[in-house]
Amino acid sequence: MIRTLAVVGTGLIGTSVGLAMSRQGVTVHLVDRDASAARTAAALGAGVTDSPAGPVDLAVIAVPPRAVAGVLAEQRARGLARSYTDVASVKALPVRESGDGTPDATYVGGHPMAGRERSGPLAARADLFEGRPWVLTPSPHTSRTALNHALELVARCGATPLVMDHEAHDRAVALTSHAPHVVASLLAARLQHGTPDVLRLVGQGLRDTTRIAGGDPHLWTDILCSNAAPVVQVLREVERDLAGLCSALEDVGRDGEPKAASRRHVSDLLERGAAGLRAVRPWPAPGPVARQPFRVTVAERPGELTRLLDIVVEHGVDAHEVTARIAPENAGVTAEFAAPADTAGELRRRLAERGWHVEDASARPYRRPQSSRGSHPWEDGVVPAQRVAAALPGV
Amino acid sequence: MIRTLAVVGTGLIGTSVGLAMSRQGVTVHLVDRDASAARTAAALGAGVTDSPAGPVDLAVIAVPPRAVAGVLAEQRARGLARSYTDVASVKALPVRESGDGTPDATYVGGHPMAGRERSGPLAARADLFEGRPWVLTPSPHTSRTALNHALELVARCGATPLVMDHEAHDRAVALTSHAPHVVASLLAARLQHGTPDVLRLVGQGLRDTTRIAGGDPHLWTDILCSNAAPVVQVLREVERDLAGLCSALEDVGRDGEPKAASRRHVSDLLERGAAGLRAVRPWPAPGPVARQPFRVTVAERPGELTRLLDIVVEHGVDAHEVTARIAPENAGVTAEFAAPADTAGELRRRLAERGWHVEDASARPYRRPQSSRGSHPWEDGVVPAQRVAAALPGV
Repeated sequence: MIRTLAVVGTGLIGTSVGLAMSRQGVTVHLVDRDASAARTAAALGAGVTDSPAGPVDLAVIAVPPRAVAGVLAEQRARGLARSYTDVASVKALPVRESGDGTPDATYVGGHPMAGRERSGPLAARADLFEGRPWVLTPSPHTSRTALNHALELVARCGATPLVMDHEAHDRAVALTSHAPHVVASLLAARLQHGTPDVLRLVGQGLRDTTRIAGGDPHLWTDILCSNAAPVVQVLREVERDLAGLCSALEDVGRDGEPKAASRRHVSDLLERGAAGLRAVRPWPAPGPVARQPFRVTVAERPGELTRLLDIVVEHGVDAHEVTARIAPENAGVTAEFAAPADTAGELRRRLAERGWHVEDASARPYRRPQSSRGSHPWEDGVVPAQRVAAALPGV
Repeated sequence: MIRTLAVVGTGLIGTSVGLAMSRQGVTVHLVDRDASAARTAAALGAGVTDSPAGPVDLAVIAVPPRAVAGVLAEQRARGLARSYTDVASVKALPVRESGDGTPDATYVGGHPMAGRERSGPLAARADLFEGRPWVLTPSPHTSRTALNHALELVARCGATPLVMDHEAHDRAVALTSHAPHVVASLLAARLQHGTPDVLRLVGQGLRDTTRIAGGDPHLWTDILCSNAAPVVQVLREVERDLAGLCSALEDVGRDGEPKAASRRHVSDLLERGAAGLRAVRPWPAPGPVARQPFRVTVAERPGELTRLLDIVVEHGVDAHEVTARIAPENAGVTAEFAAPADTAGELRRRLAERGWHVEDASARPYRRPQSSRGSHPWEDGVVPAQRVAAALPGV
């Protein structure tokens, strides 16, 4: 049971840990080489700036990746704590750097998957870690006590522990966090000299794509240099795809009319992007979810379909997956969708209330809409909402 | 004055135009080569599917870029309308392709800067264009009537017109929209084969960076191929930066210890990204804004600084720009910030109410915080919230 904690480094993450643990009655000692930063954290309620009388139960080293090994060695020499963990976003480096041959049983690497664009203690929040994964990377030498202290910290911060090998962790964050940061920065760098007219055309898409480039360049240089090899591996793959795409577009541009192969090259990359995005979609829940397929016919009257969509989406149906078509014998518009089983009953009641014709479509097994790779699913008369745009050219 | 409108192509944009204009009493005729799509749009209230009795005032060609010239020529031959505009995100191509030598006075190119990840009529909204820029690209041949019809359409959809040369438009959207789409797709494509553990580490940063890769691959292939040369120009610059960064990171990785020049290369790119992002920040308003600088000292008591920050942010201060330091003679914590002039009076009252010591800091002119490029502004005792993280390594 953690009764006393030290936080070394009172930036965003360290101060947030202090806030979360202080709130639970743990005595938190705040340490920072900059006394002003520690006292700012204390003024926020993250703990006290007094030195502990004896070793604390757990010390959280919350400094940038390159500094972890040094600070850890230093604090261990002073006997600051019985167990140690850190929060750096790179996990192999501290292991490599602390390699004086002595296996260390008191340390377990850690990395809470939480952050904000803002840094420093003033950005800290007690609930920063709630519901987030928090990776722990115990080595074969890590003691059960150290591991349990770290697990308790994670639990009391409201996070979910995820145990990983430190090298697997570093490869994973290179892909999910470090390479994306580089790509956002590359793109944002292009905007540096935009004219006012150009900048007026900036929309939410670009803002979202580049948002993380606003992170502290100093800290991120440290992160990228500390995880260089795995980051380069991802970025070289991006570079290869980018070069291929540029060649294809140059080929397209040369005579105005896209050659089929070049066009396919462009389209393949976009399809792969869309597929990658589906792989990380937070919804629907992974694995098969019981769903109830519906077929509802409404009158072909302005606004009627909108009213149906509003109700359907309220009951947990992804609007992407609703399809519409003209009903047989022109008897209105038929929408098809599948509702989560737990809301299907209530939804059926609401639909019937409006006087709409509701059919149980369960005879036909529900299939997720196909990717648009060349297929035209509405050729059989069904118009997926997602696909109508591709069917535009007029009359 | 537009009394009758035709929309050719009832996807997201065309249907949204129909909804916005129908709502204002304009008779909107919906045309689509897929009758089911047009009738779906009509069922949403975007207009009627009957053919107009005679030429309408304005026809909006809402089909993908490569189809614009063909559909325009076809509809013009039928005499669908007195004036024509389109909504495609590429503007030079229709001009190039319709180049039969006859200058066309009835057409003005258009591009509303609005969209959603979803496409098709079911995603349409009457307020899709409200407050958004809508580019118009009149040629020297465009008649005043055609231009005024297009301007009226933009105004009645609630958007703001922005007149540009068609080639300048295409270069601008290559930078602000098309290249970002490619970059998001390249990154998303890397996620295609992530293991479940890797995918658990995906956070909001990656989701935002890749979100636009979810756009319809079919439509986006068309957009990229239609604006190939300007898009390639931006992407080749990204490629060059990326190759340089990879080399620098490889150099860093080789012996574990970053060489100063390589580290600087990484850091420079990140600084350029941050600078580009500041160039497109929607806040603060461009140009000098009258601000009232404050210096407020609170007791060094847990939570006191948090309470101050909450109130300050409520009054329009960007939390990024609040700094904190220990007051002289340890008399508490002093926060400095500058509030917008229009909320400063009310803020001063709120602060005084809490019994905090409020000083007018206007003697010192307010400066925006510097970029962190090598400077350490807290060396004089001031700790910018943004910079504390860089001062971490412990004790």
